[in-house]
Amino acid sequence: MPDSATTDFHAERLARLQAELRQRNVDIAVFGPSADLFYLTGFDAHLSERLNLLVVPAQGDPALIVPTLEAPLVGDARRLVSIHAWADHEDPAALAAKVIGDISGKRVAAGNQLWTAFLLRLQGHLARATWVEAAPIIRPLRMIKDKAEIDALAEVSRLTDEAWEEFIEGAAISGLTETQAMKRLADLTEKRGVSRVWGICASGPNAASPHHHTGDRIIQEGDSVIFDWGGKLNGYNSDVTRTVHVGPPSEEFRKVYDIVRQANQATLDAVRPGVPLQELDRTARRIISDAGYGEAFLHRVGHGLGLEVHEEPYLVEGNDLPLEAGMTFSDEPGIYLEGNLGVRIEDTVVCTEDGGMRLNHATRDLVFMD
Amino acid sequence: MPDSATTDFHAERLARLQAELRQRNVDIAVFGPSADLFYLTGFDAHLSERLNLLVVPAQGDPALIVPTLEAPLVGDARRLVSIHAWADHEDPAALAAKVIGDISGKRVAAGNQLWTAFLLRLQGHLARATWVEAAPIIRPLRMIKDKAEIDALAEVSRLTDEAWEEFIEGAAISGLTETQAMKRLADLTEKRGVSRVWGICASGPNAASPHHHTGDRIIQEGDSVIFDWGGKLNGYNSDVTRTVHVGPPSEEFRKVYDIVRQANQATLDAVRPGVPLQELDRTARRIISDAGYGEAFLHRVGHGLGLEVHEEPYLVEGNDLPLEAGMTFSDEPGIYLEGNLGVRIEDTVVCTEDGGMRLNHATRDLVFMD
Repeated sequence: MPDSATTDFHAERLARLQAELRQRNVDIAVFGPSADLFYLTGFDAHLSERLNLLVVPAQGDPALIVPTLEAPLVGDARRLVSIHAWADHEDPAALAAKVIGDISGKRVAAGNQLWTAFLLRLQGHLARATWVEAAPIIRPLRMIKDKAEIDALAEVSRLTDEAWEEFIEGAAISGLTETQAMKRLADLTEKRGVSRVWGICASGPNAASPHHHTGDRIIQEGDSVIFDWGGKLNGYNSDVTRTVHVGPPSEEFRKVYDIVRQANQATLDAVRPGVPLQELDRTARRIISDAGYGEAFLHRVGHGLGLEVHEEPYLVEGNDLPLEAGMTFSDEPGIYLEGNLGVRIEDTVVCTEDGGMRLNHATRDLVFMD
Repeated sequence: MPDSATTDFHAERLARLQAELRQRNVDIAVFGPSADLFYLTGFDAHLSERLNLLVVPAQGDPALIVPTLEAPLVGDARRLVSIHAWADHEDPAALAAKVIGDISGKRVAAGNQLWTAFLLRLQGHLARATWVEAAPIIRPLRMIKDKAEIDALAEVSRLTDEAWEEFIEGAAISGLTETQAMKRLADLTEKRGVSRVWGICASGPNAASPHHHTGDRIIQEGDSVIFDWGGKLNGYNSDVTRTVHVGPPSEEFRKVYDIVRQANQATLDAVRPGVPLQELDRTARRIISDAGYGEAFLHRVGHGLGLEVHEEPYLVEGNDLPLEAGMTFSDEPGIYLEGNLGVRIEDTVVCTEDGGMRLNHATRDLVFMD
């Protein structure tokens, strides 16, 4: 049985997107497999060399170009769009161009993650139009989460925290490789029903590389170890970072840890509707810079989180968009000392009318592991 | 210690790409995080909203635009390219445009999987150029595997086969959900050191959907069950499909299974250098159509396989490119009867001077499971 409540809220999102298109004088928007497509239709399309394309005109009915072999996956979304299936020996760009129609002189928005090859092929089939990014158009929708979305984020965050609590109370990590330690934490997360679990484990000097590729280094006494991981539940993601220490820490590690923790809390405290997003980055950066580690804070303080692990809004210098209730994002200052150590503490935060609320409750106190 | 042999072969690949660019009158090529980038440099860049971009001019030195926080991941690839790092508050498209230089009136190739948003931002910073797809330019390199690549594919295929043999000799799958059955097989694959294991388990009527989303359906007596899965080892992928039956099969299932198996073998037998790729698809389709199931063979017979699970060359009607020794691809005919059953059998095959050689050796005999 199709769930009409589900397709109803997707229909409403499509209508809101069409209103945004009209307001911005954009004639049509196209999206490949992406969180945008899933958000608008509930169709979790397969990203590959086979073209799946949602076509949303500012006025009129949306259409979906889909490979014949993947048509069964469209599910209830077929109630929202006309379906145009293509077989492997056919040219999907030609089909899409036919569905899109004459766009000469019009403004067409392309979903940010659509592959360039598809854009170039569409352009080859279509008369000249002005192509613009769809992200600023769909942003007002996706960036503000409704209650159901926030509940979903809270639940996946809660389960991820639970996995962490079990992990730190468990066996020693000293003597394990980063890969083995990460697998233990990922398994604890996965067994709680969280899927597509990803993770970074960065130990000792590797912790100074914020996006370290988890590898074969053996964790040992004296290491700081960063765990940055998360997973998906009902479409929504968790993303948490905690830094532990194996054995007694140096004076410097303790100092750095305290600064990062202060920056994490101060960022949370600065959250309230109306504050420009860049102000959150400045808040964290001020604390870290005043403590003498400004150069070692290698990234922005956070990113939006929802259907994607990274999405709008970005908490970065230059983004003067004001905070609004319903925005959800990471709060993750870090200090990275090359060849030596790294510390990062990350929570997922929601902006409410009353200020910032953490969705993660795993302890931020310094944890020692064997 | 940097491994100079490793960077040497990447340097050679970059030089070959530059020769291809010159031959095709293309002035410059750009690649985002992708198998192309990894193939050319060994840099396994993180795909995200942060721009990583390899810039390869037809003449002169390649350059790499990279986020500051990910610069440590570049590794030995820094011996091949000049590095241009950007901080989160900076505009990477402006930096990339500066590195690319004046391209007005020139031909620029973009990697197929580069996100449209990056292309549009680059175009916003750069004078008008003609943008073309990079895939046909890099294809002659990536499509023909050298011995080390074929050895890597053979090894990951062998381990994936081993996992299958253990799986079918193991406990009953009747009573498990598709997700549980797939997890058992994935765990057996992963424990052999194969990573990033993905998979489809499609049971009963779900097996009629070639790209079914593995779900909560409980496998039961009378089901045909398709397992299509693989994983990565040393950068190279396996991709195997086997169809089993739970309990005694119907006459129709036996008939369909035999036809698919014949089509799989006939496709293998048709492999030899010089044969147009579409001829392999035609071979399988002829057998299935002659048996009366032409409409139920919903996809091309195969796709290239290497650093990506799907890559050039595609074995599809309309592709008259001739087979060459060193091409590696899937051989995967299937028959899908809606509401009833599905059968697919897939091996990875390499084209040698003497014909097709299977890299998978898991039995293609009909397997019954409890």
